[in-house]
Amino acid sequence: MAVKGFRAAAVAANMRYKDRLDLGLIVAEGPAAWAGVFTRNICLAAPVIWSMERAARGRGRAFLVNAGQANAQTGRPGEADCRRSAEALGSLLGLGPEEVLLASTGIIGQPVNMEALTAALPALAAGLDPEGLADFARAILTTDTRAKTAAGEFELNGRPVAVWGCAKGSGMMAPDMATMLGFLLTDAEIEPGLLKEVLAEGAELSFNRVTVDGDTSTNDCLLAMASGAAGAGPVTGGAALEGFRAAAFGVMRSLARQIAQDGEGATRLVTIRVRGAATAAEARLAARTVAESPLVKTAFFGGDANWGRLCMALGRSGARFDPYAVDIDLDEVPWIRDGVDNGQEAAASAVMKKAEYVVVIDLKAGPGEYEALTCDLSPEYVAINGSYRS
Amino acid sequence: MAVKGFRAAAVAANMRYKDRLDLGLIVAEGPAAWAGVFTRNICLAAPVIWSMERAARGRGRAFLVNAGQANAQTGRPGEADCRRSAEALGSLLGLGPEEVLLASTGIIGQPVNMEALTAALPALAAGLDPEGLADFARAILTTDTRAKTAAGEFELNGRPVAVWGCAKGSGMMAPDMATMLGFLLTDAEIEPGLLKEVLAEGAELSFNRVTVDGDTSTNDCLLAMASGAAGAGPVTGGAALEGFRAAAFGVMRSLARQIAQDGEGATRLVTIRVRGAATAAEARLAARTVAESPLVKTAFFGGDANWGRLCMALGRSGARFDPYAVDIDLDEVPWIRDGVDNGQEAAASAVMKKAEYVVVIDLKAGPGEYEALTCDLSPEYVAINGSYRS
Repeated sequence: MAVKGFRAAAVAANMRYKDRLDLGLIVAEGPAAWAGVFTRNICLAAPVIWSMERAARGRGRAFLVNAGQANAQTGRPGEADCRRSAEALGSLLGLGPEEVLLASTGIIGQPVNMEALTAALPALAAGLDPEGLADFARAILTTDTRAKTAAGEFELNGRPVAVWGCAKGSGMMAPDMATMLGFLLTDAEIEPGLLKEVLAEGAELSFNRVTVDGDTSTNDCLLAMASGAAGAGPVTGGAALEGFRAAAFGVMRSLARQIAQDGEGATRLVTIRVRGAATAAEARLAARTVAESPLVKTAFFGGDANWGRLCMALGRSGARFDPYAVDIDLDEVPWIRDGVDNGQEAAASAVMKKAEYVVVIDLKAGPGEYEALTCDLSPEYVAINGSYRS
Repeated sequence: MAVKGFRAAAVAANMRYKDRLDLGLIVAEGPAAWAGVFTRNICLAAPVIWSMERAARGRGRAFLVNAGQANAQTGRPGEADCRRSAEALGSLLGLGPEEVLLASTGIIGQPVNMEALTAALPALAAGLDPEGLADFARAILTTDTRAKTAAGEFELNGRPVAVWGCAKGSGMMAPDMATMLGFLLTDAEIEPGLLKEVLAEGAELSFNRVTVDGDTSTNDCLLAMASGAAGAGPVTGGAALEGFRAAAFGVMRSLARQIAQDGEGATRLVTIRVRGAATAAEARLAARTVAESPLVKTAFFGGDANWGRLCMALGRSGARFDPYAVDIDLDEVPWIRDGVDNGQEAAASAVMKKAEYVVVIDLKAGPGEYEALTCDLSPEYVAINGSYRS
C-alpha cells in the first residue's frame, strides 16, 4: 500500500558521483506536519542547522537531499548555500524557503557544488511523481550497497493508514543517530508535537541501537512528514496512537536492521542483548562496548567463538557485575555459564558462522536490559575507508 | 650498561606455541623492592589477582611470565594453578611462593598447560644468567613482530644507576594499561612505596596514552623490581629521585612508543596532541576519541588528509569547543584554521604518507592538554584478529 499525499523524484545531478542518482526530493501535496531528530555531534553540518531550526516550526512541505557533499565545516558560506538551495527549490515549487528541510551526506569540509545542484533542480521538480519514492531511496546512498526501505500500516476508523520510510547508512554510525539519513512518511493526520515524540522514541529503539563503527556523523538526521491524506481522522491517543506507534516503530526497526546488515564491509548481523545489568544505563554501556569492540567484531568476522573477547569488553565497559556469574547464550546455545566455558564450543562455533545471530548476555546483577545491533569488522571495512575520498 | 642484581632466562615450554620461547623468568639476587600497576578491567585474570595481592607486600624475588595461556576466566582452578606455579618455581629456587609474581598472556578462558609449564621449570631455573634479559623480552611476545626493550641511567653519588624495561603489545590495548605486559628493572635502591609512585605516574604518561584498538585486556600488568645493586645509596627524594624518575619515564615512554609502532597491522605511528581544551579531562576525551575512531584510523592507513573524520571524532567526543575555532597542524603544516581547510592539502597529504607524524589539535577553549599515541587501522589488523585463535 502506498503512502498518500506525497510525490517524490530523484536525478543524477553529478554533484560528486557521475551518472548516478544523487539528488532526491519529497514534496507533500499540502502543508504537512513534520519533525526531526538530529545528530548529537557538536560539529553540526549546515543542513542540520538549517533543518533543526525549521523542523521546530512544526509544518512544511519538502525534503531536499543530496549525496554529494556533506556541507559540514563549511562555515557561513555553507549556511548561505543552504538558504540558496531552499530558495531555488521553493521558487520552482511555489514554496517559501522555510517550507523546505535539507539533508546532505558526503565529504566533510567541501562546499556544495551549487552549480550542479541548481542546474538539476528544474528536472527534479518536473519529475515529481507519487511513485517516485523508490528513486528517492536510491538517490540518498553513498557507500551503501543497496537501498533501504520499509513500509507498515494500521487501521483507523475502518481506513488503512500507511507509514513508509527509507534510510542510508552505512559507516560513521553509532547510537546518537546511527542512520546518517532517515526519512519517515505517513498519511496519518497527527500534530507535529506528537509526531516528534513518536519519532524520537522510535529512533531510540531502532537507529540509536545500531553501531557499525562507533563513529557519529556531523550530518545524521531523521526527518518525518505526515500528510493526513489517509482521511482516517486524527491520531491523538488511545488505540489510534498505539497503531501509529507500532507501524512507525516497525518501519524504523526494519530500517535500522537493514543499516546494520549493510554496514561497510559487513558479512554478519549480530544482536547484542544484555539483561541482568545493575541498571538500564549499565546494560547500555555493556551492550555498546561489546558491539563496538574491534576485537569482538573481528572475532565475529572470523566466526570465532572466542568468549575471552566478550569477557574483556564486558569487563572494561564500566558495568558492574561478578565475572563468575555471567551467562552467555549464542542463539539457543548455552555457551558460558557462571563465567566459564560450558563445553559447547562446537555448537557455539556453528552459530558464529551464521549470517545472523543473537548474543544474549545475562550479567545477573539487576534488572537492566538493553539491545544493540552490530555487524562484524572485515578487511573490506578498512579497504572502503582507507580510500573513501579517492 | 647492564642493570645489576638480576638474572633472567627463557625457554620454549611448548605451552601453546611450538619451539619458540614462551616462558620467561627474572630473579633478583637478593630481596628486592617491587611494585605493580594493573588493568582496570573488572574481569581479572588469575595471575593478575595473584600478583596484585603479592605486589602489595612490597618486596620479593622473581617474575614468572608465560605467553601461552592467559589464565583468565578460569575460576578457582585457574587461581590454584597460579599457586602451584609459584610453589613449583619457589621450590627450585629456594623461595617462598609469595616471593614470585606471575603474569600471563594468551587466550582467555583456557586453563594453563600446567604439565608443560612444570616440565619446563628446571631448565628455566638452570638457565638463569645476568645476560638473559634479551631472551626474556622475546619470550613474552604473542602477535608482536619484535621484542621491545629500553634502557636508561642516571648518576647518583658518582655511580651509574641503571633502569631497564621490556614490554609486549600489541592488540587489546588502550589507556588503562596499554602494555598488556611490561617489566621494569633497576639497580637503584628505593623503597617500594616510592617505586610504586614512580611506576604509576610513568604508566600514566606512557602506556596509558597508547591505544591500538581501545580494548583493554584482562591481563594487563606492569611490574617493577629494584635490586639496589648499583651501590649508589638510596633514592629518597631530591635530585636522586628526579634522576630516577627521568630514567624510568624515558624507558616507559620508549616502550609505549614501540608498542604503538608495533600495533597489530600498524603501518604508521601517530601522536595526537590536544591543547586548548576546556579542561584536562576534556583534552583526554578528545585525544582518545580521535585516537580510537575507526574512521580516523582507516584514514591514517590510507594516508588520506580527511579533516572531516577528525572533526567528526572531536565533535562526538564530549569535549566542548566552537567548531569554527579549531586549529589543526600536521607536523608543521597549518592544515585547518578556525575550523576550515587552510588550502594546505598537498602538504598535509605528504605528512600523512609518513611513517610517523604528529597531529596537533588546538580547541581554543581553555588550558587542557593531553597527548595520545596511536597507529593506523589496516586490513592486516582484521586478518590477525579474525583468526587469532586458529
